[in-house]
Amino acid sequence: MDIRIPTLLLDEYKCRQNIKYMAEKANKNQVNFRPHFKTHQSAEIGNWFAESGITSITVSSIQMAEYFANAGWKDILIAFPVNILEIDSLNKLAKKINLHLLLESVETTKFLIDNLKFKSGIYIKIDTGYHRTGLSSDDAKIIKEIASLIKNSKHLTFTGVLTHAGHSYDSQNTKEILNIHKHSIQQLQQVKKIVSNIFPDCIISVGDTPTCSLATDFNGVDEIRPGNFVFYDVMQSYLGSCNYKQIAVAQACPIVAKHPSRNEIVIYGGGIHFSTESIKDNIKGNNLGLVVKIHEKGWGMPLTNTYLASVSQEHGIIKTTFDNFDFFNIGELIGILPVHSCLTANLMSHFTTLDNKKIEKFRFSS
Amino acid sequence: MDIRIPTLLLDEYKCRQNIKYMAEKANKNQVNFRPHFKTHQSAEIGNWFAESGITSITVSSIQMAEYFANAGWKDILIAFPVNILEIDSLNKLAKKINLHLLLESVETTKFLIDNLKFKSGIYIKIDTGYHRTGLSSDDAKIIKEIASLIKNSKHLTFTGVLTHAGHSYDSQNTKEILNIHKHSIQQLQQVKKIVSNIFPDCIISVGDTPTCSLATDFNGVDEIRPGNFVFYDVMQSYLGSCNYKQIAVAQACPIVAKHPSRNEIVIYGGGIHFSTESIKDNIKGNNLGLVVKIHEKGWGMPLTNTYLASVSQEHGIIKTTFDNFDFFNIGELIGILPVHSCLTANLMSHFTTLDNKKIEKFRFSS
Repeated sequence: MDIRIPTLLLDEYKCRQNIKYMAEKANKNQVNFRPHFKTHQSAEIGNWFAESGITSITVSSIQMAEYFANAGWKDILIAFPVNILEIDSLNKLAKKINLHLLLESVETTKFLIDNLKFKSGIYIKIDTGYHRTGLSSDDAKIIKEIASLIKNSKHLTFTGVLTHAGHSYDSQNTKEILNIHKHSIQQLQQVKKIVSNIFPDCIISVGDTPTCSLATDFNGVDEIRPGNFVFYDVMQSYLGSCNYKQIAVAQACPIVAKHPSRNEIVIYGGGIHFSTESIKDNIKGNNLGLVVKIHEKGWGMPLTNTYLASVSQEHGIIKTTFDNFDFFNIGELIGILPVHSCLTANLMSHFTTLDNKKIEKFRFSS
Repeated sequence: MDIRIPTLLLDEYKCRQNIKYMAEKANKNQVNFRPHFKTHQSAEIGNWFAESGITSITVSSIQMAEYFANAGWKDILIAFPVNILEIDSLNKLAKKINLHLLLESVETTKFLIDNLKFKSGIYIKIDTGYHRTGLSSDDAKIIKEIASLIKNSKHLTFTGVLTHAGHSYDSQNTKEILNIHKHSIQQLQQVKKIVSNIFPDCIISVGDTPTCSLATDFNGVDEIRPGNFVFYDVMQSYLGSCNYKQIAVAQACPIVAKHPSRNEIVIYGGGIHFSTESIKDNIKGNNLGLVVKIHEKGWGMPLTNTYLASVSQEHGIIKTTFDNFDFFNIGELIGILPVHSCLTANLMSHFTTLDNKKIEKFRFSS
């Protein structure tokens, strides 16, 4: 591989295995699989999902929905509170594909009723404990009002209730993650009862990678929407959602300087390639990624006591041990398994497969 | 302004004032001004510097150097440890422009002597306390060895010694920043003495926005290289390097949801628009930006007790007060002054001026 600058390597085999694993899990549990494409943002990787029989997807912005609609996807959920300023774009999409939207306020519901010109499926967004967006299962009055408005509207079609249990990322162990999964489903079932008079057919949609990776019981769930599992990352391995061998991306970075007095290695690879997201690790402090050796067929397991400790705009500082220090040589490449693959992939223009194929992706533009 | 998605507004007047202020300060103190262009990464904004008489610039990557060389700049310093894997690109640049490079190891110096085919100016990078890259002023033996190698080389021309006192960002007050400034210059003068036998003409180059904004004494300094001052940001205002009125960029974001039970506002604007960098504020906890009202001619002063408290990929959560809550309306725009304008600008494809002109910029590609 002729790599000279930070380059996001994608192990296609691992990635396809991750897709296959989750698709089979969905099949086995008889739930619809609507994977979140915000992690990879790539039409070509999307095709690998299509090869596994996937027909419905999730995205996080209207621009991203347009990108995947242009790539041929016909059933797209925009899992983000409707941005009413983009109504023209929504109308174009709703005309073209089977569009699904999230609602959590009476105000936005009324706006859509007045302004949406083509049929769209609606999920009501429920906050099951993450406290980012969504209505609480206690908000029966608002939920009923939104459901009634949808019932009487011309273009809005009720699909179901939905949550993103993002608080699973703060869990300390598998048991906590499974509890969040169980508790989220219970709350969505409670909301399903609230709307059952108006909409007897209400699907329950859940979707975060930790719960979808670790749970085995999907009773009461109709749809799952994990996204990160397509690549996984160091955060997911810490949570127990995956093992290191399942992580399908590694940032290849040139080594540019060495500082023996503090066992530090300077790489070309910084905040603009990885993002600045880190795990606060009790032992290591800040950890922005784990370090792997790159070889012709991919990369190895993380080096012990060696990690990406800080980044500035283009610099990355790897902390390592005295014993590992001489392993690093100026002018060679080293791989970093990112802490958060979604943000790292977002920053990069392409993926590069192990057989040196460039895979294009969406890039936000404004 | 017809804004429907996160859009990085640029107040051209404020930006030009910031450029003018620093250019005049450099003139007055008789130091060469070699501004760092990694903050704006834009050929057009580069032209505003050229209008102030600037002819030498700093960038942080070879790709960025190529971008600005194509835009007509003839004197460019790549302020990053030489990445020897990019020697072919360096040769193309060195042939075309007056290129300057940073060295901090004997190994990379020898590589350049063997492989660089055109003249390049060399700065030796000195670590004056930031501990990211560079040699210590105590490393006299290595510094002398590098200087001797340069002296006897065909294409390397010694320019001077250089530091980036990035530890100024950890300062608690102006006095600490000024001490760092003074102490950095002292260390560079010590290094100048080390090489004085070999190179009697050795310039001293310093450059970070806090010290260059706050210092009034540039005795012993030959060149300054600040970058962030072109926009400034909330971090700089906390450090005292600027006031809020000097901040020249604000991210305009649509309001998409409101949560009265916790005085939170959800905006379309997340980690992929701002970066995840934050200030740990004793009062507010995590702070990723301050909130301003947008009007036809720009934006106002930050709202009290109101800030961007968290981001995920596309979501931003603003925390505000009960009194301010009703000020926010779904479907309206709100402005965010970013904590770190370099990383925010890097994520965006364009700047949008207040008269709705799109300004293009460089974007890393791999």
